[in-house]
Formats: sequence, C-alpha cells, structure tokens
Amino acid sequence: MSDHIYKKIELVGSSTEGVEKAVENAVEKASKSVRNMRWLEVNEIRGHIEDGKVAHWQVGVKIGFTLDE
Amino acid sequence: MSDHIYKKIELVGSSTEGVEKAVENAVEKASKSVRNMRWLEVNEIRGHIEDGKVAHWQVGVKIGFTLDE
Amino acid sequence: MSDHIYKKIELVGSSTEGVEKAVENAVEKASKSVRNMRWLEVNEIRGHIEDGKVAHWQVGVKIGFTLDE
Amino acid sequence: MSDHIYKKIELVGSSTEGVEKAVENAVEKASKSVRNMRWLEVNEIRGHIEDGKVAHWQVGVKIGFTLDE
Amino acid sequence: MSDHIYKKIELVGSSTEGVEKAVENAVEKASKSVRNMRWLEVNEIRGHIEDGKVAHWQVGVKIGFTLDE
Amino acid sequence: MSDHIYKKIELVGSSTEGVEKAVENAVEKASKSVRNMRWLEVNEIRGHIEDGKVAHWQVGVKIGFTLDE
Amino acid sequence: MSDHIYKKIELVGSSTEGVEKAVENAVEKASKSVRNMRWLEVNEIRGHIEDGKVAHWQVGVKIGFTLDE
Amino acid sequence: MSDHIYKKIELVGSSTEGVEKAVENAVEKASKSVRNMRWLEVNEIRGHIEDGKVAHWQVGVKIGFTLDE
Amino acid sequence: MSDHIYKKIELVGSSTEGVEKAVENAVEKASKSVRNMRWLEVNEIRGHIEDGKVAHWQVGVKIGFTLDE
Amino acid sequence: MSDHIYKKIELVGSSTEGVEKAVENAVEKASKSVRNMRWLEVNEIRGHIEDGKVAHWQVGVKIGFTLDE
Amino acid sequence: MSDHIYKKIELVGSSTEGVEKAVENAVEKASKSVRNMRWLEVNEIRGHIEDGKVAHWQVGVKIGFTLDE
Amino acid sequence: MSDHIYKKIELVGSSTEGVEKAVENAVEKASKSVRNMRWLEVNEIRGHIEDGKVAHWQVGVKIGFTLDE
Repeated sequence: MSDHIYKKIELVGSSTEGVEKAVENAVEKASKSVRNMRWLEVNEIRGHIEDGKVAHWQVGVKIGFTLDE
Repeated sequence: MSDHIYKKIELVGSSTEGVEKAVENAVEKASKSVRNMRWLEVNEIRGHIEDGKVAHWQVGVKIGFTLDE
Repeated sequence: MSDHIYKKIELVGSSTEGVEKAVENAVEKASKSVRNMRWLEVNEIRGHIEDGKVAHWQVGVKIGFTLDE
Repeated sequence: MSDHIYKKIELVGSSTEGVEKAVENAVEKASKSVRNMRWLEVNEIRGHIEDGKVAHWQVGVKIGFTLDE
Repeated sequence: MSDHIYKKIELVGSSTEGVEKAVENAVEKASKSVRNMRWLEVNEIRGHIEDGKVAHWQVGVKIGFTLDE
Repeated sequence: MSDHIYKKIELVGSSTEGVEKAVENAVEKASKSVRNMRWLEVNEIRGHIEDGKVAHWQVGVKIGFTLDE
Repeated sequence: MSDHIYKKIELVGSSTEGVEKAVENAVEKASKSVRNMRWLEVNEIRGHIEDGKVAHWQVGVKIGFTLDE
Repeated sequence: MSDHIYKKIELVGSSTEGVEKAVENAVEKASKSVRNMRWLEVNEIRGHIEDGKVAHWQVGVKIGFTLDE
Repeated sequence: MSDHIYKKIELVGSSTEGVEKAVENAVEKASKSVRNMRWLEVNEIRGHIEDGKVAHWQVGVKIGFTLDE
Repeated sequence: MSDHIYKKIELVGSSTEGVEKAVENAVEKASKSVRNMRWLEVNEIRGHIEDGKVAHWQVGVKIGFTLDE
Repeated sequence: MSDHIYKKIELVGSSTEGVEKAVENAVEKASKSVRNMRWLEVNEIRGHIEDGKVAHWQVGVKIGFTLDE
Repeated sequence: MSDHIYKKIELVGSSTEGVEKAVENAVEKASKSVRNMRWLEVNEIRGHIEDGKVAHWQVGVKIGFTLDE
C-alpha cells in the first residue's frame, strides 16, 4: 500500500441546494470517466447571485484517485 | 460587457442553521442597500460555541456587484 | 474580561451528513473533556470517496476555550 | 504626514486590451466618487474566454485613499 | 444574537508612536462615521523611514461592525 | 445553468512580448484540444533572463472549461 | 542538543495595554502548567472595540517548549 | 524557445523510504504516459503512521511538461 | 468509520541526519504518550548552522490521531 | 549543471508604461552590478495614483542569478 | 520619480523592550551601511522565552531603499 | 544576546542526491563569503527532470546570520 501513486484533478461543481451538493455533483460527474477516486479537498466556495439571492453555489474541489490499478 | 467595473464588499453573516443560511442572511441584508450583486466568495467559516454546542455559524463573505449601471 | 487567556486545539470531525454535522461531532467530542469552549474556526474541508460517491466529510476545526476559570 | 488615515476599497476592473487597462478602468471609475486616491494593489488577474480566445481581462485591485482631508 | 450581520472595512492607520497607536488612530477616525464597531484584525504592519529612522508606523486593519441596528 | 461542472487545467504560457501574450499563447494552445473554455486565473508570473535582459515571460494560468456538453 | 523534540501549543492572550502585554499574559498563564518554554510565534493580532475605542487586544501566539526533560 | 507551452499535472507519490523516493516514484509512474517532463514542484509532505512509526511518506508534486512537441 | 474524530498536535523534531529522521524522532517521542496516531503533515523545514555547516535539521510536523477509542 | 548555486535578490521596479516595463527597468538596473542573472519571479504589483490616474506602476520582483562562476 | 528602482533586504531585529524597538534596532543597524532607506514591512513576530517569561522579541522586517542615487 | 541583528539571504542550492544535500551545498557556498550563519529555512523544493527521471533537486533556502560581530 505504501507505493501507491495518486493523481489529483481540479473541478468546480455547482448546485442550487448547497455546498455539499455542489461537491457531490462534481464527484458524480467525475465518476463517469475516473475510477478509483479516494478523497476530495474543497479549495474554494463561491456563489452566483441573481435578483438579490444566492442562485447557485460553486465549489472548487480537488479529487485524488489511484493511478496504479 | 468587457468593460464592467465591479466593487467587492466584505460581510460576515450568521445563522443558527448552517453555513449556507449564514451566507444567505448576509446577501439578503446587503440586497437592501446594494443593487446588481453578481457573485460571492466565502473567505472564512467560524462558529460560536455555547454550552458545548455550536450555537451559531459566522461566515465571512465577499460580495461583488456591478458599479456601472 | 479583557485579560482572558484562551487555548486553541485542532480537531478533525467527520460525518456522512455534511460539513456542519462533522464540525458538530468534533465539538461534541471535545465537550467531554474541555469546558468553556467559546468559538471554532474551520480550516480544512475534505471528504472520503467510496464507489464514486462522497462517503463522509472530514472537516478540520480549531476550537478556542477559556483557560482562566 | 505621519497621522494620515487611509481607507482601502476593492474593485475589479475589466478590459479587452490587457491588465493595465483593466486597472486603469477601475481607477477611472473610482475617481468619479472617491477623491485623494494614493495607491493601488493588484490582488487577482483573471480573464474571460470566448470562442477559444481571451475576450477580456478582469483584474482585482485594492485602492487606498486618504480619509483626512 | 445569532442572526447579526457584520460589515468589514479596511483602513490603514499611521502614527509616530507605534503599532497600537496607529490602530487606535484608525479606529478613532472610523468612529466619526461608523457606529457599532465590534472588533479589528491587523493585517499588515509597515513603516516609513526617513533619515535612517522609523518616522512613522502604518498599520493595515480591518474593522467589523454590526449592520443590523 | 446552476448544475454545470467545470474542470480546471494548469498551463504555463511563454512569450517574448509580455504577460498577456504569454497567457494568450497558452489559451490558444489549449483551444486545440479543449472546447468550452470559460475563464482563466493567472497564478504565477516569471521570466527568463538572458544577457541581462528579460528574454521571455512565463505565466502560469489555470483554465476552466465546461464538462457537461 | 540536535535531538530535542519540541511541542507547540496555541494560545490567545488579551490585554488592555497592547500587543506585547497580551503575549506576556499568555506566556505567564502557560508558565503555570508548562515548563521549558523556549520561543513564541505571533500569528494573529485582533482587538475588541467598545464605544468606538480599542477596549482590549487579542493576540494569537504559538509557544514552543522542550518535551525531552 | 520562448514560445513553449507547458502543462502541469498534480500527483501524490508514496514510499516507505523517504521524501525523494516518493517523488521519484511519482515521476516514474508519470513517465509511462507523459513525455517531455521538465520540472517538478513539491507542494505537500505527509506521512502515514502505523504502530507508532512512519509507515510511508506521501509527497504531493506538480510536474511540468512541454506541450508543443 | 465515517464518524471518527481526530486530534492534531504540533511538534518540532530534530536530527543531525536529515528531514525524515527529524520527523521520525518526533513521531517516536509522541508514541510514548499518544496512541492511535494516523498521519503526519510537515509544515516547516528549518536547520541550525554551526561553523558554516548544517548541524541539525528541525522539522515542524502536525500529527493526527484518533480520539474515539 | 546539477550543482549550481543561485542567489535571489528582491527589487521593486517602477515605470509609467506598465508592468513589464517596470520589471525590465529593475532587471536593467540590476545588470549593472550583477552578472549571470537567470530568472525572475514577480511577487507584487502596485501602482501610484495621482490626480485620479495611475501615475506609475511598481512591481516587486525576485531575481535569481548563478553564484558559481 | 516614476522610474526609481528599490532593493529590499530582510533583517531580524531583536529587543527586550518590544516589537517597535526590535524593528528600530534593525533599521539603525542597517543605516550604517545602507543609505536612502524608504520603508519597512514587518513579516514575522517571534520571541525568546526564558524562565517562563518573554526574554526578548525578534521581529522580521523587510527594508526597501532606493538604488538610483 | 537580546539585541542581536540578523540578516537573511535567499539561495537556491541544487544536488543530484537529494533535498538535504542541495541545502548543504547552498550553505557551503555561502560559508565562503558569509560568517556567523545561524539558521536556515527551506521555502521551496523543486526538481529538474531529464529523460523521465529526477536529474537534480533544487531547494530554496533562506539563511540567517548575525550582523553584529
């Protein structure tokens, strides 16, 4: 286990519901092309405002996955 | 569209419910005096603890709005 | 009140539900051995991914409490 | 001179031409309502891409001005 | 108390005497137009040098105040 | 629009002319394999020096593009 | 001397007098339970404002002490 | 040479031996799919602990390679 | 597994041999009073110089361990 | 080539024309006393404002040069 | 005035009295070999602890001076 | 001892062997012109890649030395 190599990719997920849902949307999208995802790191929380309200959340996330399988 | 000028203001919203609600409270408050808000950036998440529990969330947020209309 | 001394400890809470719950779990755990907790600062939001989904959230949090009572 | 007080405001200027022009647009806009501007600090350089080209530059800038006159 | 909204403004105070006095000068100046100031955060300590000596201190400070009263 | 997912890639463009041209070279190169680019973020400005002069500029840039089309 | 191990703890000291006194209050408090303190690192300077004046200073400080005696 | 474009990817290498070996493992893995690698930047050093000992090192590394050949 | 709580402590290990050995010395020292250590994060690499040579390495490290057993 | 030692110095160049010219002015000045300059890193972009306009740009730059020839 | 070039050097001053005096000691020392010093930037505040008290303050400071006279 | 003044210089050492050796090469080089070096701080770890392997390590290091003897 000590010699695994991981790659990180950086996504921005968005959602009208909240921070966690925006991240989950990004992970779900990534799951269609990346296997063996292991962890995520949130690095930015932003939001889009329309008509004086938060219209949707945009959350930057790095996703780490195993390269060696 | 390429020559818009935006101003950012920095608020701290709070809520007993959670991070998103604290931000929404800040945006709602700002909407009473600022028009044309476009986006927000969360820059700090804190909380107040009372009796060993999170009593309310305090979330720092920068809000960007258009200056040119 | 102006001469209080506070200590900060650093925890990582986790939860399958979301960011706030992970923090609350950390605060609840700390409440068993630390009294007079006053505030928290979130300094890291991560998550564990299993089978292409966010399995649980891991949130780093600094907790400040009064030393002087 | 040693007892001046300055205030900083944060703007985002944009321009199709480049970084300096985006900053100058922000300063020009600010000059309509703020007097006694003294200095600026660039804190972010972004750009909007359309059709595979940089359509305009967006530059975050803090502007300091004297409060005491 | 959990639903307060705060605004932060950013000032630079200066003083020939020292860091604390520069901050106090900024706070005093702000008190003429802002009510309900609650806290400050020092984010930069600089100084102006003349004739090989520190002529005055320049201290960047963010000031938070309540918006809701 | 609120459920878009974006990916960010990190490039370093270079140019003998200046910062903007180095970024534009990176964006042009990326446009050959990436569609739907939306924005860029400059995160590093460096330069190569030869014979006591700036020979070319090297600018680090993150480029965000839509994943969902 | 090269194989010493140090531990760092994080405190916040406060004082009505100024930054140095707030740190000294934190160090004095720590001296009641920690021996062999060696150095400190200031990582945050804040203040509490009451009635438009700085009421007291709050200074975050990390304190390093030897574990091996 | 002044118009090269580089891409950076982010990996995490691991090794039971040490920091350099963890990086070399990441570079070796990358060499199987990426050509023209030019430089690396270490951005994180972590380790996994088992039974009170460092079981393996995990080192985050950005790798830059030429896009234009 | 999703509801574990971890605590982080911050140590500085030193060694005449190198960075990894300084970390291992810190972990070994911690193992005498802390059980269930899981991971470490290096946050600072310094060294002491004597007679124009590196006499020993000093490495700051955060160590995370499980609180819940 | 692998055993070169470099020194970095930190300058601030200024120019009425723009960011690149301010850097080039700093490099040109340095070239009068430093040989074997290899690269530069921009670490700060500021500007001086007079009469509501950017009067000149001030750009902080680190310059690396070879020590071993 | 717009084409001045400045150099920055980095010192650490110390003093038993406090932060400002430590900086002033550094500036006074620099004044013996550097002319035309213009400004300073504090970048680190540390202290040495002896017998449970702050024995002296150590303050990191960057000093900028004009190169062109 | 409390009134020492230190100067910091910034070097980049390189080595085919590893991080520590790159630092030691920088310190050895500095020792030819600087006396009374006291400590070092690593601020950057990079590497040069050739033929898919780490060809040499490049480590940025700040070195502090006493000015007052």
